[in-house]
Amino acid sequence: MHFVKMHGLGNDFVLVNAMTEKVPGDLPGLARRVCHRRFGIGADGLILVLPSEQARLRMRIFNPDGSEPEMCGNGIRCFARYVYETGLAEGEELQVETLAGIIKPRLILEGGRVAGVRVDMGAPHLEREQIPMAGTGSPVLDEPIEVNGETWRGTCVSMGNPHCVFFVEDVTGAPVTTVGPVVEHHPLFPRRTNVEFIQVLNREELRMRVWERGAGETMACGTGACAAAVAGALTGRSNRKVTVHLAAGDLQIEWSPADNHVYMTGPAVEVFRGDFPLD
Amino acid sequence: MHFVKMHGLGNDFVLVNAMTEKVPGDLPGLARRVCHRRFGIGADGLILVLPSEQARLRMRIFNPDGSEPEMCGNGIRCFARYVYETGLAEGEELQVETLAGIIKPRLILEGGRVAGVRVDMGAPHLEREQIPMAGTGSPVLDEPIEVNGETWRGTCVSMGNPHCVFFVEDVTGAPVTTVGPVVEHHPLFPRRTNVEFIQVLNREELRMRVWERGAGETMACGTGACAAAVAGALTGRSNRKVTVHLAAGDLQIEWSPADNHVYMTGPAVEVFRGDFPLD
Repeated sequence: MHFVKMHGLGNDFVLVNAMTEKVPGDLPGLARRVCHRRFGIGADGLILVLPSEQARLRMRIFNPDGSEPEMCGNGIRCFARYVYETGLAEGEELQVETLAGIIKPRLILEGGRVAGVRVDMGAPHLEREQIPMAGTGSPVLDEPIEVNGETWRGTCVSMGNPHCVFFVEDVTGAPVTTVGPVVEHHPLFPRRTNVEFIQVLNREELRMRVWERGAGETMACGTGACAAAVAGALTGRSNRKVTVHLAAGDLQIEWSPADNHVYMTGPAVEVFRGDFPLD
Repeated sequence: MHFVKMHGLGNDFVLVNAMTEKVPGDLPGLARRVCHRRFGIGADGLILVLPSEQARLRMRIFNPDGSEPEMCGNGIRCFARYVYETGLAEGEELQVETLAGIIKPRLILEGGRVAGVRVDMGAPHLEREQIPMAGTGSPVLDEPIEVNGETWRGTCVSMGNPHCVFFVEDVTGAPVTTVGPVVEHHPLFPRRTNVEFIQVLNREELRMRVWERGAGETMACGTGACAAAVAGALTGRSNRKVTVHLAAGDLQIEWSPADNHVYMTGPAVEVFRGDFPLD
């Protein structure tokens, strides 16, 4: 089975063209095998390119445990670059069928090369019930939250998943691994929450570290960067168009005044290609 | 750069034929890049196949941190299977130049297929200066070593590289990741050391976990299994011929009374092949 290994800000994927490669029927089993970092190729996810009746192509993505998430912001950037460079789709804008509906990634071309991919992440949800979050009043701006005997001030946003954003003086020394898990499981968040620690460098640049729900501190979280940009704009700390600096690189986030959608632009990088025997 | 990814008991390697592939001069840098599990191919080591004036071929191996160990028992099994199946060497027995001298792996063939590889790991070195280890008196049997305020008793053996073997009641709960790094960098070991935690199941079976110098806890360490068998026999805890159970499978170890050499038999498995762009 021929594959391409790619990553988006350190979030790594094995991509397979399931229209030409013979892929076994047990896709969760294949993902578990392929994603294993010692006995397989090693990845955070297996992405399959499939035909679609509703869009140009269909993306299915499987986690290392075999489960199938609706969508993945870093993954769809890799998907878009892969199908463009492989000639499976033409043009700068692509329509991709996913479990989260039709997603329209747009390739950012510089001199014919793919410099990045822009993805419409949809509108943020600011109603407390939609985050979801206990208490009353919306939007949730700099609301005091008790953590380990200290008062933190969180701005909360849903990007389809919940985020609690804290603005800090210095993100390097931020207590991500001690405050993060407590906020994730805080009674204010009935479905738990992702937690972002954001340093405002200036009105156009944020630096971020993130505690991901169910995963711990990770190198990058696309929806987290979107939530941070929305929180920065909502509280007057930064503009609606910002660069978010993460451990493995940058994301450009724009909260469009025209349609209220959040657009995320970031890299997708090919690492190597290979052949994985299926026996 | 074309490569083959293999593993021996979960200890995984990227193998490159440096006689035909163009490899950059900075080999430690290449190893760091190739071994990274998100931005590279991902492996416990990079193995290069090179010409030799002293033997049929020469093996060089680099850790993910760029350091170069003398030898690696799991690695040389992969090396032997790779060069046999690639046609770089003929016959069931091979002579390989390493920093630990000439090693002679023997292929175990079953119906023309490689079922495993037996490696003459040479004679163990029991002299303190040869391990190398500070202090006086040889061999080093159950010698008290202070670690984090506790006294551990180590039996120390060189298999071309240094090993400090601790026998424990239960290897599952052994403090591999806290005691391991402290012993690795203990002033007793001027060139650092590998650290094995061994549970004796019976006189013919050991269970092992290992902290590898420069790599951290790994699923398997071939020279570590040899050192453990030697340490078990030296201290009267087990026979000279034992099966060592590791997280990902078994190794058969025999410390031959005939020639004092240690023979290790275990698997080597190809996982996938690919091309890694060097830019």
